[in-house]
Amino acid sequence: MKNFNIFAHMISILIVGNGNVATHLYNAFLKADQLTVTQLNSRNLREIPKATITIIAVSDDAIATISSKINNSLVVHTSGSVAMEDLKNTSSKGVFYMLQTFSKNKKIDFSRVPFCLEAENKEDYQLLAILAKSIGKKIYPVNSEQRKALHVAAVFVNNFTNHLYKIGNDICIENNVPFEILHPLIYETAQKIKTLSPEEAQTGPAIRNDKKTIKNHLELLNDQQQKIYKLITTSIKN
Amino acid sequence: MKNFNIFAHMISILIVGNGNVATHLYNAFLKADQLTVTQLNSRNLREIPKATITIIAVSDDAIATISSKINNSLVVHTSGSVAMEDLKNTSSKGVFYMLQTFSKNKKIDFSRVPFCLEAENKEDYQLLAILAKSIGKKIYPVNSEQRKALHVAAVFVNNFTNHLYKIGNDICIENNVPFEILHPLIYETAQKIKTLSPEEAQTGPAIRNDKKTIKNHLELLNDQQQKIYKLITTSIKN
Repeated sequence: MKNFNIFAHMISILIVGNGNVATHLYNAFLKADQLTVTQLNSRNLREIPKATITIIAVSDDAIATISSKINNSLVVHTSGSVAMEDLKNTSSKGVFYMLQTFSKNKKIDFSRVPFCLEAENKEDYQLLAILAKSIGKKIYPVNSEQRKALHVAAVFVNNFTNHLYKIGNDICIENNVPFEILHPLIYETAQKIKTLSPEEAQTGPAIRNDKKTIKNHLELLNDQQQKIYKLITTSIKN
Repeated sequence: MKNFNIFAHMISILIVGNGNVATHLYNAFLKADQLTVTQLNSRNLREIPKATITIIAVSDDAIATISSKINNSLVVHTSGSVAMEDLKNTSSKGVFYMLQTFSKNKKIDFSRVPFCLEAENKEDYQLLAILAKSIGKKIYPVNSEQRKALHVAAVFVNNFTNHLYKIGNDICIENNVPFEILHPLIYETAQKIKTLSPEEAQTGPAIRNDKKTIKNHLELLNDQQQKIYKLITTSIKN
């Protein structure tokens, strides 16, 4: 029976995992008021401390096994691509997914990180929202289906976009021009979609159907780059 | 005979064209010291004012024809994909290429814009550099070959990246989640390559060769999106 007042008591957090997400979260919670936080290596699950919320921040494949060993009241994972029901604890389940790219040595500004939350009931959702608000600002209710879609979309705008940056860099290296010339354009392209939809922001030879420029560009590219150039050009034209 | 001291005299600029680049440049030069600037519609070439530097800022296809009608001393174009020799004036030629995306209603911060300059001789290059410094800060000598390569690279990091944003947006719309959840990730992806090379910054299921996640993602996509997902995933793995 949940008869405690969460506002009047400390919330205790247990983080399981020692990767980038686990460590960044641990450091953020340490600085928050009204929280106690413990971090536990996932290979060390013989004695599991009690906690109001247990956050499993491990690789996708390990979530089911690890969650099955935890008896704490509310157990959540942090994955973009694992459904809430894939948690195998017998108590309450939830998801605490931060849609951001976490690097080992780069500080995270949690006030800019979107927290995508899911829970089985209102009380648990509220508890996760309080937790998210203790370190962040942007909170969204996102169910497992929506989260899967967001995760795929994130692959396009993050992983694949970064690969296009790599191709740009390769072309610069090959032609002996500094890649930094492209930095302001990359920045502006990312900024533009805050005020225009990507559809409205589209420019370039593909949308203009400028065949001459497209032909000239293809001549400068290797096979793999040509394939990507052609496919995305076709996709833009459609 | 060029026996004037460019530091002691006003530089007169003529801009031919009335698109985004021409208009943004005109407004920037208006505010600069030691410059006079005139803008001329390219359909109105019967009486062409004299000028120290004539900047042809028109569509690629019109550059040759328009330049052939101009007798001023130094004539430059602003195109990323047209060679300097494609100018058909009989006097000195050059290129004044700004590698940035210009939108009609969005103010340009010229201090962040890379000016890629090319000329036939040192004096003309210096003159273009003085002009660029009057409104900007970042100046690079870039020859026609290098400029072509930069232009293709720009298509990847700007046009194609924006199309990946569009696919991300489409996936969000279809699954009823706000695209704004992805804005911080998009911003961070663009920021990251200022401190890491794109190769070092690469994350995601493709580089990890996470076949299960890749399979799950493909199931959520339409045919066109699947083609792009598969091709870029293969390219990242190579």
